[in-house]
Amino acid sequence: MRLSSGFVPTLKETPNEAQIASHRLMLRAGLVRQTSAGIYAWLPLGLRVLRNIEKIVREEQNRAGAQEILMPTIQPADLWRESGRYEDYGKEMLRITDRHERDMLYGPTNEEMVTDLFRQSVKSYKELPQILYHIQWKFRDEVRPRFGVMRGREFLMKDAYSFDLDQEAAVVSYRKMMLAYMRTFQRMGLKAIPMEADTGPIGGDLSHEFIILAPTGESQVYFDAAFEEIDYLGAGSFSHDKPEDLARFFTEMTTHYAATDEKHDTARWDKVENKREGRGIEVGHIFYFGTKYTKSMNATVAGPDGKPVHPEMGSYGIGVSRLVGAVIEASHDDNGIIWPDSIAPFKAAILNLKVGDATCDAMCEQLYAALGDDALYDDRTDRAGAKFAEADLMGHPWQIVVGPRGAAAGMVELKRRATGERVEVTPEEALSRIG
Amino acid sequence: MRLSSGFVPTLKETPNEAQIASHRLMLRAGLVRQTSAGIYAWLPLGLRVLRNIEKIVREEQNRAGAQEILMPTIQPADLWRESGRYEDYGKEMLRITDRHERDMLYGPTNEEMVTDLFRQSVKSYKELPQILYHIQWKFRDEVRPRFGVMRGREFLMKDAYSFDLDQEAAVVSYRKMMLAYMRTFQRMGLKAIPMEADTGPIGGDLSHEFIILAPTGESQVYFDAAFEEIDYLGAGSFSHDKPEDLARFFTEMTTHYAATDEKHDTARWDKVENKREGRGIEVGHIFYFGTKYTKSMNATVAGPDGKPVHPEMGSYGIGVSRLVGAVIEASHDDNGIIWPDSIAPFKAAILNLKVGDATCDAMCEQLYAALGDDALYDDRTDRAGAKFAEADLMGHPWQIVVGPRGAAAGMVELKRRATGERVEVTPEEALSRIG
Repeated sequence: MRLSSGFVPTLKETPNEAQIASHRLMLRAGLVRQTSAGIYAWLPLGLRVLRNIEKIVREEQNRAGAQEILMPTIQPADLWRESGRYEDYGKEMLRITDRHERDMLYGPTNEEMVTDLFRQSVKSYKELPQILYHIQWKFRDEVRPRFGVMRGREFLMKDAYSFDLDQEAAVVSYRKMMLAYMRTFQRMGLKAIPMEADTGPIGGDLSHEFIILAPTGESQVYFDAAFEEIDYLGAGSFSHDKPEDLARFFTEMTTHYAATDEKHDTARWDKVENKREGRGIEVGHIFYFGTKYTKSMNATVAGPDGKPVHPEMGSYGIGVSRLVGAVIEASHDDNGIIWPDSIAPFKAAILNLKVGDATCDAMCEQLYAALGDDALYDDRTDRAGAKFAEADLMGHPWQIVVGPRGAAAGMVELKRRATGERVEVTPEEALSRIG
Repeated sequence: MRLSSGFVPTLKETPNEAQIASHRLMLRAGLVRQTSAGIYAWLPLGLRVLRNIEKIVREEQNRAGAQEILMPTIQPADLWRESGRYEDYGKEMLRITDRHERDMLYGPTNEEMVTDLFRQSVKSYKELPQILYHIQWKFRDEVRPRFGVMRGREFLMKDAYSFDLDQEAAVVSYRKMMLAYMRTFQRMGLKAIPMEADTGPIGGDLSHEFIILAPTGESQVYFDAAFEEIDYLGAGSFSHDKPEDLARFFTEMTTHYAATDEKHDTARWDKVENKREGRGIEVGHIFYFGTKYTKSMNATVAGPDGKPVHPEMGSYGIGVSRLVGAVIEASHDDNGIIWPDSIAPFKAAILNLKVGDATCDAMCEQLYAALGDDALYDDRTDRAGAKFAEADLMGHPWQIVVGPRGAAAGMVELKRRATGERVEVTPEEALSRIG
């Protein structure tokens, strides 16, 4: 993208309404604009990050054997009356009446709808297990939406639902999803820790929330340093397809101490040898709740003996749009965002310090042609200082600075945003380091 | 995808509620399920087609210089009060009241919201032209939703909006979008024809609708055979970046006769040398409407002389979810769907006619490993006849049939769905033809 023609409206001033770093930085760097309280439009840079996060989430769901579908945003109230949640849900549910006076709602979650799809389509235990997921906009009518996309009203969520014949198989699905989550967050450059959680309004027997560490996080967390050592991506890590791997993985996740302040157990904590404390943000939540919905909505499959069985279910959420804010909370400094390579809107910014200088222009065009859609080319006629400040604000992992003196000598300056390290290299060398 | 574990609930019976071919076939082949009147859940096969269509639309929008954003589904009523459309829109607009009694709505289109984003962000004529687009779910509360995804209530639309300094520049944007549309539809294997249209409720001065030819289309269309000759994709075709190409392209599009029955002009028709008639389906609509919204919502930029100017706008829609149905209307036979290669859910189906036979299984696994996510592997223990029928129904461009006799001789049967042509080839040759 050429910044001279791109739609990247940055702000010089810090907006008053933004109380936390990610909200401020997302507005200032031109990632989003609020269109109503707690509702945002995603501008080109923000949307690119959102799509990159979505892609990692999708790849890891697929790797775990989950199948992608897409349920609509608007649901009939009758499904929620079947499960008994229509009245329970309270004012966070956005209730809607259509032109024929039918009660509808904007889905805050999809247990009912996916159970309905399942009971229409799956007839035999032989078709189990099934894990279905979608990545779709949800709505929760928060009383006081705040913190930007971290607690918005319209938000993008990945929600998966597992269906298994019995509890033993359901636990395998639960572990697969847990592993998918740890891989997902590690790929985004985040330190995530699963913590035992209350099952809350979804109900059920087993639940973990996934907390990522961020200095500005919403809650205090306590955990064993052992979590910092585990590699979920390397060759020697865990496979979704091997039950023994999943068991070993689950033991690792549940043996070491980890708790938010709400569930903190000082007696157990005292016995932890290598203690870590910090602030954390919840970015995912998984539940095993058995037959709660299959029974209330009477979803059955024919079991091995021909008799109807209510499958065991779990549900698994990741806050996709929330993650954009959460990553920024985990990775920024006073100058702006520091994007992890895997989700940055662009790999690199090319800063042309003297637009109109033939050598600078030619070198920048050459770099831009090589990087293509991976680069944001700052080809505006602004001062160098303004360009440096905006590149730091937007947080591109790499900056390639092309000035007239360096360009005349065939050199550029390559800056790594995360470390601030700068080296003078040839354009070819810069491209090769960016990779 | 392995069909034994995939979520592909096909139907043996033709559903009663489906009046047209695409609706019947989408339900029967397990692409979608209705969740409320005119609202559908997209199952794995349907979602893959939807995403393939979306990808082509996106690539051609980007090629034309449009920038992708994502506006939310829920909009504040106040924006529509500014433009004067809140009362005008009638009962098709889904009106919502939130918990604080604020009037909201589920967006049926986004002229107001994009004009609001524009006026907040763009200050100078130097930042023009801008073409912004998004691909987002919309809602229109149709009185009688029908024809499946062709006239649903919740539907996926690509809508783009252009902002230009003056009429001359606005016409260039209009032509760029028109070219992007012709390329988009040709890439999907569709014969599309632009037809002059009324500007309708969006208002304005210039408008074309894009009709694709389908024997079961909703309206009668008349056009010059010259349209059939034009190649929008080839090397010698038109470039978005050359004004002379755009002018030549626009002349081609508007000189030859083309009209729906509503606008049919028999006097002009009589003079057409090579006449073509057929049935058509509207899949896109573009409008140039000048300053209608920039004036009513007071969006201005500083002009070259420093004085505020109301930019000239156009809007450009493609019915992305509607296209899934429209393509099927244009391309099916008595046995099922015939997907164009570019949007098929899978390139090929692998039909294992004797699951359990070591040679068949090994050959199928080898083919499946080579094709990966491009293949649907029918590894169920069903009869051969059922597998053939379902592969035809689902409409994969290629079928690789692996039977015990052929497999023993190292051969498979390769069938092309569109022509019915079958050849006996080695697995390697099959893979090479599928490409």
